[in-house]
Amino acid sequence: MADQHIFDRVVSRCRELGSAVCVGLDPHLDLLPDSLPGRDEIDRCRNFLFAILEALDGVVPVVKPQIAFFEQLGPDGVALYFDVIRRAHRHGFLVIGDIKRGDIGSTAQAYARAHLGADDGGAADWVTLSPYLGFDSIRPFLELGRSRDRGVFVLTRTSNPTSDEIQALDAGGAPLHRHVGRLVESWGSANVGESGYGDAGAVVGATHPEEARALRRELPRTFFLVPGYGAQGGSAEDVAGTFDGDGSGALISASRSVLFAYRNQPDKDRRFAEAAREAAFEMSAEIAAAVDADRPGTDAEGPAAAPA
Amino acid sequence: MADQHIFDRVVSRCRELGSAVCVGLDPHLDLLPDSLPGRDEIDRCRNFLFAILEALDGVVPVVKPQIAFFEQLGPDGVALYFDVIRRAHRHGFLVIGDIKRGDIGSTAQAYARAHLGADDGGAADWVTLSPYLGFDSIRPFLELGRSRDRGVFVLTRTSNPTSDEIQALDAGGAPLHRHVGRLVESWGSANVGESGYGDAGAVVGATHPEEARALRRELPRTFFLVPGYGAQGGSAEDVAGTFDGDGSGALISASRSVLFAYRNQPDKDRRFAEAAREAAFEMSAEIAAAVDADRPGTDAEGPAAAPA
Repeated sequence: MADQHIFDRVVSRCRELGSAVCVGLDPHLDLLPDSLPGRDEIDRCRNFLFAILEALDGVVPVVKPQIAFFEQLGPDGVALYFDVIRRAHRHGFLVIGDIKRGDIGSTAQAYARAHLGADDGGAADWVTLSPYLGFDSIRPFLELGRSRDRGVFVLTRTSNPTSDEIQALDAGGAPLHRHVGRLVESWGSANVGESGYGDAGAVVGATHPEEARALRRELPRTFFLVPGYGAQGGSAEDVAGTFDGDGSGALISASRSVLFAYRNQPDKDRRFAEAAREAAFEMSAEIAAAVDADRPGTDAEGPAAAPA
Repeated sequence: MADQHIFDRVVSRCRELGSAVCVGLDPHLDLLPDSLPGRDEIDRCRNFLFAILEALDGVVPVVKPQIAFFEQLGPDGVALYFDVIRRAHRHGFLVIGDIKRGDIGSTAQAYARAHLGADDGGAADWVTLSPYLGFDSIRPFLELGRSRDRGVFVLTRTSNPTSDEIQALDAGGAPLHRHVGRLVESWGSANVGESGYGDAGAVVGATHPEEARALRRELPRTFFLVPGYGAQGGSAEDVAGTFDGDGSGALISASRSVLFAYRNQPDKDRRFAEAAREAAFEMSAEIAAAVDADRPGTDAEGPAAAPA
């Protein structure tokens, strides 16, 4: 795996599996199956997530543990976060560490070492970062990442209700998030892989489909991570415009709708992993079909989950 | 201490000590004194920081552990972060957890529980947050904080070189950071204490003194945390304008220039704590003098460290 640009790796892995889905690993304690064994909360989370990883193996290319849910369990929870990343790597997943850090100088270097630095499988392949402090808060991650073929995703246009308060402000004739998107593209441009993407990706929410389509046109060298699918309201049609003409360029992320799919099937408490696997297959197929339908000159009636 | 607004507590504690200084606890491993004992890196950090807390007791009102330096030491480092907060509280310090988190919904709730929720002394009195996602990323911290007299500081105008890339963008006729400052003031306005400050403070860097002065005028109900003093180039005169007419309203933060003051005095390796104490006294006096000199109608020649 070494010596391959991180976005070349994800493009080729998405093609292999016919899936552009990233499953968010957000272990909400109150949504875990009642039947799940474990001597304490952390043990139950471990059992749950390890079973989910097993079930998603070969179905989706990427998983995204959300560190907040681990931090709330204390230092042992943080240890579990890194255990989950190591386990995910052993299954062959690429891993986004959803940490949304944003700090500068030696502090950013410390975060980079903590989250992108390890060589024992415990480092994420990407981390998510916040852009508010500018390139000072991104550079240390890219510098470390470039020596290890790792990258970042920078918050650009988020999917939450109050995202407009700052991101939609008019900044010189365009909304602020467009300006941030252009910065992200410039930050990643020093290390563009064979697939054409720089090593700084952008987080672009599914709940603003027209804006996402405009960003896609404006940022040809930027890979998108698209949250907000499913539980937050984004549909397959909404996210289709975040892909490039060749059907790559985006990962669509869902958490609860896959992870806790068993909750819509009350008889399946003991088969939560199977329910997650089915939901991940279904989501992958829906997205592949919508992307095919969206591409000019392709046959919308073609096979739903065909590799791009 | 309970049932008192967090910004009333800090205003009264600053007056008691005649100091508006916050010391950042950033344990750079390569800056620790050679003579420091300890069986491993974490143990050496603990010995260093506990000695620093002892030395600063009664000198400065607030300390600010920077979690990145603890995260880079792994889960045991995160445990030390919370140990340091507990120890600081036993000394009577107020504590800012410098975490700069920024996420939404249930994720923000998880972070809030992790960092503002504990009742064993391990919760910070404030955490620092990033504003890019809007109020969704702030509200869960304020909601939890209001039940426990805790608060937040939101990044508004930072002191680093690339802060202009986003914060200085023209947004409707004013730089973006002014807009963010107004948002922060509105977010804290539902819980204003007797001293007149809401429970959402603003991070306003020392390296933009004229902008900081303008923010001070525009945001009368917002307490400022001012980094960038010392090592980053901000002087006492630069930060004087971040205080209100009565000499309160701001905490000036320094990390390396206090924590590692011993490094300017090579004979003092074994007396690093004493060097930090002297540096903290000196910084407190410099700032008090500059604030006095800056206030209309006060005698610039008055006693340097007089309580406001």
